[in-house]
Amino acid sequence: MAKMIFLTVGSLKNKACLALQEEYLGRIRHYTSCELIEARDATQKIPESENLLKKIGSGDFVVLLDEKGKTVSSTGLAQQIQKWNGQGLKRVVWIVGGAFGVAEEIKKKANLVLSLSSLTLPHELARVVFFEQIYRAFTILKGEKYHHE
Amino acid sequence: MAKMIFLTVGSLKNKACLALQEEYLGRIRHYTSCELIEARDATQKIPESENLLKKIGSGDFVVLLDEKGKTVSSTGLAQQIQKWNGQGLKRVVWIVGGAFGVAEEIKKKANLVLSLSSLTLPHELARVVFFEQIYRAFTILKGEKYHHE
Repeated sequence: MAKMIFLTVGSLKNKACLALQEEYLGRIRHYTSCELIEARDATQKIPESENLLKKIGSGDFVVLLDEKGKTVSSTGLAQQIQKWNGQGLKRVVWIVGGAFGVAEEIKKKANLVLSLSSLTLPHELARVVFFEQIYRAFTILKGEKYHHE
Repeated sequence: MAKMIFLTVGSLKNKACLALQEEYLGRIRHYTSCELIEARDATQKIPESENLLKKIGSGDFVVLLDEKGKTVSSTGLAQQIQKWNGQGLKRVVWIVGGAFGVAEEIKKKANLVLSLSSLTLPHELARVVFFEQIYRAFTILKGEKYHHE
């Protein structure tokens, strides 16, 4: 099973979103090894993109979440994860941008660009929805009751 | 401005979702008169649909949120609200179902069926996303900074 690295910018300020993020991350850990990396926000000297880039290894498979990406459903996301497991990928790095998306040089690193929703959401809530969908994907793969359409 | 009635089933159990719901409802109240009605869950004697139906007035414009509905974007939702205001509607009743959607007799009451997302979300989180989108719609109509694409 590929290790999941969730690469984000900054920490969540909203306590309710933070609680939901923790809840879903805890659930995801029952299925796979994962790590949340909250890269530093940009400073005057160091752009955000630099902070993100140094967290990406050369062998990583990089997935960027972006509203212009390929739309994927909950079951489609599960199939995608299953495919990676079949391919024996070691690390999948998910890049979940902040309020203003990510820089072009990050986009170039992406092996795959996915869009989870055509809705514009505040980035803190978008992060919660993302983690819930990853958790849901694992329950789908295990045939568990959580997901029903 | 049409009064917004948010007709749901049961109250939220997850404290974080409840906090987010309260936050967005509070923000929506800055723009329009609104009311959250949490109809009773079904009992052995009274189905959920009956509890919902008695909250709908004969002159109400009824919008059902359903994954099989017409997909609408954040800006599309704003345009829809603007249209109703132009038409002088008194009350718009939004039906936001529980985990298992709503009964057929409720679907028949709907003047419009909208889908906010192709994702399957837990109904408590879906409710939060819905309220955030209603709030966002008002900020779009007012040309406020909150929304950027």
